Amino acid sequence: MATTVLQSADAPADAPVGATGAACCAPPVTAPLGVEDATALARSMKALADPTRLRLLSLVAAHEGGEACVCDLTDPVGLSQPTVSHHLKVLVDAGLLTRDKRGVWAYYALVPGALDALAGRLATRLGG
Amino acid sequence: MATTVLQSADAPADAPVGATGAACCAPPVTAPLGVEDATALARSMKALADPTRLRLLSLVAAHEGGEACVCDLTDPVGLSQPTVSHHLKVLVDAGLLTRDKRGVWAYYALVPGALDALAGRLATRLGG
Repeated sequence: MATTVLQSADAPADAPVGATGAACCAPPVTAPLGVEDATALARSMKALADPTRLRLLSLVAAHEGGEACVCDLTDPVGLSQPTVSHHLKVLVDAGLLTRDKRGVWAYYALVPGALDALAGRLATRLGG
Repeated sequence: MATTVLQSADAPADAPVGATGAACCAPPVTAPLGVEDATALARSMKALADPTRLRLLSLVAAHEGGEACVCDLTDPVGLSQPTVSHHLKVLVDAGLLTRDKRGVWAYYALVPGALDALAGRLATRLGG
């Protein structure tokens, strides 16, 4: 990515009076997020962009032992087991939950560090 | 904030044999996310669930002075001004960007603390 931004053709004529000229179109000081990185991050955010999935993550995290099965989760969210299972699969596919089948039930837990990693990306203003 | 976690009615029968409940998977001290809170948080995440919007936020944050106009952003993301303006509006509506019209251009900047607040919610495992 080019780090020097030449005087933009569409800027100077429209620059507000009193602008220094450096203000509007100077190059960024840190590396902004690249396309691939943004695509991966958007995928994680999409998994979080649903109230039920956020509640399921929260319920799993708050559950005794840090893990829960579908049987623990249907009542709190008031949804059927297939619907809850679908949302849990989205969260597993997004790398936010682990799934561990033991006996009849599958147990879900937070992937260690996954939410922290996302939090870190936001806290550092999505730097690349 | 409740710091005691009562024995959950739906847990004992399904609790894995041998789990200590300590060390790795101790329960968090916060209550799980409520419906209203989850809905609001999902709305913010939805605004972030798009690679272009993530890149725009990142570009604005990295821009000199912490603000940028559409004229600064179209080239880096390779999209038309109307498309970029649409994405910026979504980010403003989500409370992630401010919009300040000065002269011909509108200048966008991160809402102070907004990304940090979201990061905090993720880092605390979406506690309510």
